[in-house]
Amino acid sequence: MADDGITPLGDYARLDTDRADRTGDPEVVFGPGKSPQQVVEILAALHEAHPGRAVLATRLDERCLDAVAGAHPTAVVDSVARAAALGPVPAPRGTVTVVSAGTSDAPVAAEAVLTARVHGAGVRTVTDVGVSGLHRVLAARDELLAADCLVVVAGMEGALPSVVGGLVGVPLVAVPTSVGYGASFGGVAALLAMLNSCAPGVTVVNIDNGFGAGVFAARVARNARPRSE
Amino acid sequence: MADDGITPLGDYARLDTDRADRTGDPEVVFGPGKSPQQVVEILAALHEAHPGRAVLATRLDERCLDAVAGAHPTAVVDSVARAAALGPVPAPRGTVTVVSAGTSDAPVAAEAVLTARVHGAGVRTVTDVGVSGLHRVLAARDELLAADCLVVVAGMEGALPSVVGGLVGVPLVAVPTSVGYGASFGGVAALLAMLNSCAPGVTVVNIDNGFGAGVFAARVARNARPRSE
Amino acid sequence: MADDGITPLGDYARLDTDRADRTGDPEVVFGPGKSPQQVVEILAALHEAHPGRAVLATRLDERCLDAVAGAHPTAVVDSVARAAALGPVPAPRGTVTVVSAGTSDAPVAAEAVLTARVHGAGVRTVTDVGVSGLHRVLAARDELLAADCLVVVAGMEGALPSVVGGLVGVPLVAVPTSVGYGASFGGVAALLAMLNSCAPGVTVVNIDNGFGAGVFAARVARNARPRSE
Amino acid sequence: MADDGITPLGDYARLDTDRADRTGDPEVVFGPGKSPQQVVEILAALHEAHPGRAVLATRLDERCLDAVAGAHPTAVVDSVARAAALGPVPAPRGTVTVVSAGTSDAPVAAEAVLTARVHGAGVRTVTDVGVSGLHRVLAARDELLAADCLVVVAGMEGALPSVVGGLVGVPLVAVPTSVGYGASFGGVAALLAMLNSCAPGVTVVNIDNGFGAGVFAARVARNARPRSE
Amino acid sequence: MADDGITPLGDYARLDTDRADRTGDPEVVFGPGKSPQQVVEILAALHEAHPGRAVLATRLDERCLDAVAGAHPTAVVDSVARAAALGPVPAPRGTVTVVSAGTSDAPVAAEAVLTARVHGAGVRTVTDVGVSGLHRVLAARDELLAADCLVVVAGMEGALPSVVGGLVGVPLVAVPTSVGYGASFGGVAALLAMLNSCAPGVTVVNIDNGFGAGVFAARVARNARPRSE
Amino acid sequence: MADDGITPLGDYARLDTDRADRTGDPEVVFGPGKSPQQVVEILAALHEAHPGRAVLATRLDERCLDAVAGAHPTAVVDSVARAAALGPVPAPRGTVTVVSAGTSDAPVAAEAVLTARVHGAGVRTVTDVGVSGLHRVLAARDELLAADCLVVVAGMEGALPSVVGGLVGVPLVAVPTSVGYGASFGGVAALLAMLNSCAPGVTVVNIDNGFGAGVFAARVARNARPRSE
Amino acid sequence: MADDGITPLGDYARLDTDRADRTGDPEVVFGPGKSPQQVVEILAALHEAHPGRAVLATRLDERCLDAVAGAHPTAVVDSVARAAALGPVPAPRGTVTVVSAGTSDAPVAAEAVLTARVHGAGVRTVTDVGVSGLHRVLAARDELLAADCLVVVAGMEGALPSVVGGLVGVPLVAVPTSVGYGASFGGVAALLAMLNSCAPGVTVVNIDNGFGAGVFAARVARNARPRSE
Amino acid sequence: MADDGITPLGDYARLDTDRADRTGDPEVVFGPGKSPQQVVEILAALHEAHPGRAVLATRLDERCLDAVAGAHPTAVVDSVARAAALGPVPAPRGTVTVVSAGTSDAPVAAEAVLTARVHGAGVRTVTDVGVSGLHRVLAARDELLAADCLVVVAGMEGALPSVVGGLVGVPLVAVPTSVGYGASFGGVAALLAMLNSCAPGVTVVNIDNGFGAGVFAARVARNARPRSE
Repeated sequence: MADDGITPLGDYARLDTDRADRTGDPEVVFGPGKSPQQVVEILAALHEAHPGRAVLATRLDERCLDAVAGAHPTAVVDSVARAAALGPVPAPRGTVTVVSAGTSDAPVAAEAVLTARVHGAGVRTVTDVGVSGLHRVLAARDELLAADCLVVVAGMEGALPSVVGGLVGVPLVAVPTSVGYGASFGGVAALLAMLNSCAPGVTVVNIDNGFGAGVFAARVARNARPRSE
Repeated sequence: MADDGITPLGDYARLDTDRADRTGDPEVVFGPGKSPQQVVEILAALHEAHPGRAVLATRLDERCLDAVAGAHPTAVVDSVARAAALGPVPAPRGTVTVVSAGTSDAPVAAEAVLTARVHGAGVRTVTDVGVSGLHRVLAARDELLAADCLVVVAGMEGALPSVVGGLVGVPLVAVPTSVGYGASFGGVAALLAMLNSCAPGVTVVNIDNGFGAGVFAARVARNARPRSE
Repeated sequence: MADDGITPLGDYARLDTDRADRTGDPEVVFGPGKSPQQVVEILAALHEAHPGRAVLATRLDERCLDAVAGAHPTAVVDSVARAAALGPVPAPRGTVTVVSAGTSDAPVAAEAVLTARVHGAGVRTVTDVGVSGLHRVLAARDELLAADCLVVVAGMEGALPSVVGGLVGVPLVAVPTSVGYGASFGGVAALLAMLNSCAPGVTVVNIDNGFGAGVFAARVARNARPRSE
Repeated sequence: MADDGITPLGDYARLDTDRADRTGDPEVVFGPGKSPQQVVEILAALHEAHPGRAVLATRLDERCLDAVAGAHPTAVVDSVARAAALGPVPAPRGTVTVVSAGTSDAPVAAEAVLTARVHGAGVRTVTDVGVSGLHRVLAARDELLAADCLVVVAGMEGALPSVVGGLVGVPLVAVPTSVGYGASFGGVAALLAMLNSCAPGVTVVNIDNGFGAGVFAARVARNARPRSE
Repeated sequence: MADDGITPLGDYARLDTDRADRTGDPEVVFGPGKSPQQVVEILAALHEAHPGRAVLATRLDERCLDAVAGAHPTAVVDSVARAAALGPVPAPRGTVTVVSAGTSDAPVAAEAVLTARVHGAGVRTVTDVGVSGLHRVLAARDELLAADCLVVVAGMEGALPSVVGGLVGVPLVAVPTSVGYGASFGGVAALLAMLNSCAPGVTVVNIDNGFGAGVFAARVARNARPRSE
Repeated sequence: MADDGITPLGDYARLDTDRADRTGDPEVVFGPGKSPQQVVEILAALHEAHPGRAVLATRLDERCLDAVAGAHPTAVVDSVARAAALGPVPAPRGTVTVVSAGTSDAPVAAEAVLTARVHGAGVRTVTDVGVSGLHRVLAARDELLAADCLVVVAGMEGALPSVVGGLVGVPLVAVPTSVGYGASFGGVAALLAMLNSCAPGVTVVNIDNGFGAGVFAARVARNARPRSE
Repeated sequence: MADDGITPLGDYARLDTDRADRTGDPEVVFGPGKSPQQVVEILAALHEAHPGRAVLATRLDERCLDAVAGAHPTAVVDSVARAAALGPVPAPRGTVTVVSAGTSDAPVAAEAVLTARVHGAGVRTVTDVGVSGLHRVLAARDELLAADCLVVVAGMEGALPSVVGGLVGVPLVAVPTSVGYGASFGGVAALLAMLNSCAPGVTVVNIDNGFGAGVFAARVARNARPRSE
Repeated sequence: MADDGITPLGDYARLDTDRADRTGDPEVVFGPGKSPQQVVEILAALHEAHPGRAVLATRLDERCLDAVAGAHPTAVVDSVARAAALGPVPAPRGTVTVVSAGTSDAPVAAEAVLTARVHGAGVRTVTDVGVSGLHRVLAARDELLAADCLVVVAGMEGALPSVVGGLVGVPLVAVPTSVGYGASFGGVAALLAMLNSCAPGVTVVNIDNGFGAGVFAARVARNARPRSE
C-alpha cells in the first residue's frame, strides 16, 4: 500500500487503499467494464491490503464469476447475486433483514444479502411477500421487528416499503427493482413510489442497487445497541 | 333538440344531445374556460333536453358554483366536489364504493361520488384508509366485498389499489391524485404505481379524474346482477 | 395447500393458494425470469390447488410454451398470446368484446381474449378497425353494444377508445400497445391519449397489458345482469 | 428600410425588413416580453415598410391589445385570438378550413384563422366536432373536402386529426392545444398523439401554435390550383 | 374488393380498399410485424385493387425486401429507403424537394423521396447541406425556391429547417431523424428544435417519418398551381 | 382513543392512534389541505393520545403556524422549518448531524432538525459547506465522525453527499432540495445525483423531505450503541 | 477575514473569502432566498475582503436592486441583467463577444455582459441575429472573428450556436434561454439542441445562466494571447 | 478541392473542404453509419486537402479501425478512443489537462486526449480521481493549475467538475459519461449535475462527447497566453 493511500495497479486502476481507514470499509470492485483478469487482480490486491476481512466484487458477468472462482478457490462466488467475496467474513454484529416482494427480485435481494454480510452484519431474509397477498407480510411481522435495519426490495408498483413501514418502526431502506414492463420504465415507477411513500422514515437507493442498501444497512446494524440491553 | 343530435347554444357551444341515445348518458358540462353565465345556460339546455334525469357540471370554480346555485335553486351544488347536478337523480341500481387514502384526496373522491350517483348507481364511501395503517383497510373488507365496482382514490405512492385489489376481486378503478410533493410530479408517481399494480384487474383513469372513474363505475354497477339473485 | 394460504414450491416460490378464496380467481404464473421447468411445476401446483377451473401462465417465451405443451398435453397453448391455460375453462357468463386497431396489436388482443375466457367470460373479437378507416368501426356498432364490457386495444396515437367510447356506453377498458416508432416512446403516446380521452368512462391499463384488461373485463362481464332480463 | 434589409428601431429591435422579399411574407411581431409601446411602434414600422398588405402581431396581452386599438384605429384587434393586424388584408386565394374539437380550443383556432387571412388565404371554420360525437365531424365531410389545406385543432387526447385524416386526403396541419389536465402535461399528450397519427400525411406544429399552422396553411392554399380547373 | 370498402385477406388483415376513394391515395403496407409472405400478399391485393397506380410498402427488413423482389419482379425495391412500390408510378405533378443535412439521414430522405413519387409528385433532392457549413445551403437557394413543397430532413440539433425556412417561403415539412447520441435521445432533440423553430410556417412529422412527410408534401405539390401560370 | 386504534375527529380525519404502538412513533400532522382550525384540533387530539411525548405538525403555512402558536402557547413553533411540536421533547439518545450545502437549503435542514429532535435524537448542525469550497467540509470531519447518522441536505448538483460519504462511513441520508434553476427541474438534478452517488451507502429521500430524513435518522441514532462502550 | 478562509456573517452566511486565492475570482452573491438587507451586507463584506476589484450579485429582484442602489451609491446596478457590482471593474484583458438571437433574450445576454466585465474581460455585443434572417449573422462575421471567446444566447430552437460555430472557430459557449412556449419546455428544447450541435467545439451552460457563461468566457479571454502578437 | 469549398466524394459525401479556412480546423469524419471503405476514402480525401496537419475520424467500430490501420499504415489508430488520425500532428501550443473520475470513463477521456492533440494542443492526464476519495484530486491540484483548459470527465453523479471547479479557476469543460445504471438514465444524471454545478464557470458538452470537449479545449489552450510571460 502506498503512503498516500493510493495503490496503482498496472495502468488501469489506482486503488483507494486508505478508504477503510476513513470510512471503516475497504473499496469494492465494480465489475462492469473490467476484464476477468482485471477483476481477479484487483480483488487480490484489495485482499492483500485488507487480509483480515472479506473484500467484495459486484456486478460480475459469467466470465468474471468463473475467473474469480478459478483464481481464488476460497472466494465466495454467488451466481444469483452476481458477486464474489474474498477473505474472512466478519463476525456478525446486529441484524439486517432483507425483505423481497417477488421471485424476480431475487438477484437484487441476493446482492444486498451478500453485501451486508461482507460488511459485518448478520442477515435474515423474508421472501415473496408481495402486497397483493397481505397475509404473507402480516405473518412476518415478528421477523421484521427483530431487525436492526430492514432492506425492502420490490419492483412493479413498489408498494411493499409503504406497507412494511406502516407495520414496524425499524429503519427501512427501500430498493426499487427494474422488474416490470410498459409504464414501469425500467424501475422508475417503483423508485417514484418509494420516494413518495406515505410511511415516515423510508429511504431509497438507486434502481437494482442491492449493494448500496446492503452497505448502508450493515453500517446501521453493526452499530446498533445490542438487543440484550 | 335538433334532428341531427346537435343543439347549438349561442355561438359558443354545439351540444351533443344525441349522446344519451348512443351511450345511455347525457353530455356533461366541463367547467374550465367557460363563464358562469355559460355554465348556467348549458346546464339549463341539457336539463331541458333530458328532463327525466339529472345532468352534471364538473370542475366549477367558486363563481360558477355560486351562479348555478343562484340560477337553479333545485340544483345539487357540491363545493367539495366542485360540481353541480340539475334534475332528478336516478333511482340507484347497484353499488359503487369509493375508497380514499387520505383527507387531501377528498375533492377527487367527492367528484367520483356525485358523478356515480348522477349516473344511476348507489354509492358508499370508505375514507382515510391509507396503507401506512393497514388495520384501517383490513377492517373495511366486508364493505369492499359488498360493492359491484370499487373506485380507489390515492395520491403519493398510490399503493392503496394494490392492497385493496389483493383483498377482494371486485372490479376496481384506481384514481391517482395530485396529492404529494417533490418527486410525485403532480400525481405521476401515483399514476405509474397504479398502472404497474401487481394486483390483477386494476384499471386506471387520469390524475384527479374522479369524474371518469364515477361514470365508469356507475355503468358497471347499474348493469350488475342484483345481489339477491 | 398449506393452512395459511401459502404453498411453498421448492425454494423458488411461495404460492398464494388463498387468493381464489379472497378474490374469486387463482394466482397466475407471470413467466419472465422463470425457467421452463419452473413454469411447468408452478402451473401443475396451481392446477392441483384449483382442479375445477383453468389456471393461467402469461408472458411465456418459446421455450416455456414448448415445455408446457410437452408436460401438459391437455393445456391450451396460445403462441400468439404467448400464454397457456391448464384445466377446464369455466362456462362463459356475460360477454367481453375485444376490439383491436391493427394487426400488430394481435398479441396483446390475444392475451386479453385468453385471459377473459380463463376468468369465466364469453369473448368476441372485432379486429383491424383503426380510426383512419372509420367505416370499419361504425359497421361494428351492434357488436359493440352487445358486450357487457369492452377491451379496446390500440397503439400509435391510441385514438380508438375515444371513438368507440363516443359510440356506445358499455364499460370500456383501453389497452395501449407499444406498436409505433419515434415519438411513440414504446407506447407512451397511446397511454397518454387514452388517459386523456374526451369520451367519459374510459379506464386504462399498463402498456401491452392484455392480461390485466382481460381479468378486469371478465369480472365485470360475469357479474353483469343477464341480457334476457 | 435599411439597404441591408435590417431596420433598427430604438435600441430594442432590428427589423428583418428583407423577409417579405425572401419568403413572401413580412416579419410578425411576437408580443411576449415587449411593452405596449414597443408593440405599437414595431407594428407601425412594419406597416410603413409593407403598406400594401396587412402586418400581424400575436400573443398580445390585454394592455397590448388596448394600446394597439388606441394607437391604430384601423387595426383589426381580435381579443379571442389575442392578436392584431394593421393594413389591408390581401384578397383571398384558396381556402384554409380551421377545424376545432372543443370550445376551449377557441383561442388557438382564432389565432390560426386571423393568421391565415393576413397571409392571403380565404378561411372557413368547423367548430366543436370532438371525436366523442363522431356524427358532428362526419356531417362536415363536404366542408372538409372543399379546403385546400386543413388546420385541425384539438387538446386532450388529440384524436381529431387522425379521424379527419382518414376521411379526406386534403393536406392537414394538426395543432395540439394545452387543453386538458393531469397526464395531458400541458398539451404533450395531444402533441404525441398527433405525431403518431395512423392517418398518413398529418403534420404537426408546436402546442397552441395557431400562428404557425396559419402561416403554413395559407402558403399551401394561396398556391393551390384553382378549383374551377 | 368488398362492397363495404373492406377486403379481408386470410385471417390477418382487412384492407381498407375504400381509402383511395375517400382520400385520393390507397392504403400503404406498414412492414413491421408482418412476415415476408404477408407483405407480398398484401402488396399484391392492393395492386389488384388499384391496378392503375403504384402501391407502397414501407419499413421492410432485408427478408421482406428480398421476398418482394422475388415475387414481384416489376416492383421498385429501394434498399436505402427500406421500401418497395408495385404498379405504375403516376405522372409527376408539381415538385417536392427533399433536403437533407447529412449522409446518415439518407434512409429517411430516401423514404420521403420514394413516397412522394408514388403519391404523384415530381421529386428533386439537395443533400449534405448541414448548418455547420452554411455556404452549402445558401448555394442551393434557387433549387429551394423552385419547389412547391420542401421536406427538410435533419438529426442532431435539427437546425436546418429554421435556416431553410428563413431563406424561402415555400411550405416546409421538417423530419427529425434519430441520428445523434447522448442527449439527442433518439431524435427528441431534433424534434423539439423543429417544433420550436423561429422560422414561421414549419410543420413537423414523427421522428424518422420520411413516409408521412412524403405523403403530405406530394398532396401539396400535386395540387399546386402550375409554375407556368 | 378507540379500541381499534382509529380515532375519528369530526368528519374530516380518522387518527391512527395505534401507530405509536406499532412503529414506536405517533402519527404526524401533514399540513397541506388542512385549515388552521383542523391543524390545531388534530394536534390537540394527538397530544391527548400521546401526552408523554411531543407530537409534530409539518408543512404549515403562516396562518397555521399562527393558529398553533395562539391555541397552544407551549408549542414549539419553528417558522424556518414551517413546523410545530406540542408536548415534551424526548430526552435525546444518540446523535444526528444535519449537514447543509447552502443558505437556501435552510428550511429543509430545519425541518430535519426539529423532526429528529421530536423523534428522540440529539441533533447537531454543520451549515454552508458546499463542495465549491471543500476546505469548509474538510474542516468539519471530526463533527461528521461523531454522529450516529448524518442527514446531508443539498440542491443544485447535489454533490455534497458523495463528498461526505467518501470522508466518513457514518450512515448517511441524502436530502435533495429544490434549490436551483433551469435544468435543475425543481430538485430532480440533485435527486438523480444522490441516487447515483459513487460513495457506497448513501440513501435518499424525496425532494425537500427533511421530515422523512429526520424520522429515519432519529430511529438509527436512538438505537445506536452508546459511544462510551 | 478569518484565517481559514471562512468569514461568518451574522448567522446566515459563511463567506468563502479564500476563493479568490484558489480560483482567481471572489465569491459571488446569488440573490434568490436572500433579503435585501442580506444582499447589501454580503456585498459590503465581499467588497471589504476584495477592495481592489469589483464583486458581483446576481438574480436580484426589484427590492434587492433598489436596496443595493440605496446602500452603495457607487455600485453598478443593471436592471436588465438583474445584477449589481460593487468596486472597481478590472481593466479589460481580451475580448468576449456576447451574441443574442432575439430581444427576449436580452436579460440573459445582459447578465453575461456584466459578469464578463466584472471578471476582467472586454465585452462587445451582437444582438438580434436570429437564424431565420441569416443575413444578420453573416454580416457580423468580422465581429465574431475578433473575439477571444463567444457567448451565444438563444431560446426557442437554439440553432444560433450551430450556425455561428460553423462560421468561425473561436471558442463558443452557448446559453439556452427559457424563451419559447409549448414544447420548448422552459428552455429544454434549446438546451438539447445546443448539446447536440453539429458544429464542433460548442459547450453549453444551464438554461438562462448568463452568469456561468460570463465567468467562463472571461477566464478564456483574459488569458488569451494578445492579438498584436 | 472544389472552388466553392465543397468536395463531392462518390455519391455519399460532400466534404466541407472550406471549413479549415473558416474555423481553423478541417472537417472530421464521424464514423457511425459509414462503411469501413467510406471511412478510409473520406480520411484520405481530407488528408489530401489538408496535407500539412492531421485529420481525424471518431466513433469507429472494430472493422473501421482495422480498415484504417490497413489502408493508412502511418495513421494513429487509438482503439480505446475508437478514433484514428492521419497526417502530422501539430506542434503543441498550450496545455489541455484531461481529468477523469474512474476507469470506466477511459474511452471518453481518450477521445478527448486524441482530439485535443490533433487540434494542436499539448495534453496531460489525471486519471481515477473520483470524489469518493478526495485525497486523490487534492493531490493533483498543481497539475490542474498548470493547464490552460481542463476537460473533466465523469459518470454516475457527475460531481467531479464541481469539486475541481472549486479548487482552481482554469476554464473547465465538463463531459458527462454514460457510466452508471438505474436512475443514471444513460448519463442524464451526470449531465444535469454538471449543468447545475455550484462552481462558477463550468461548461458542459453532450454525454460521452470527448470529441467536442477536445476541440473546444484545444482552441482555448492553443490561443492562451504563454506561461513564460
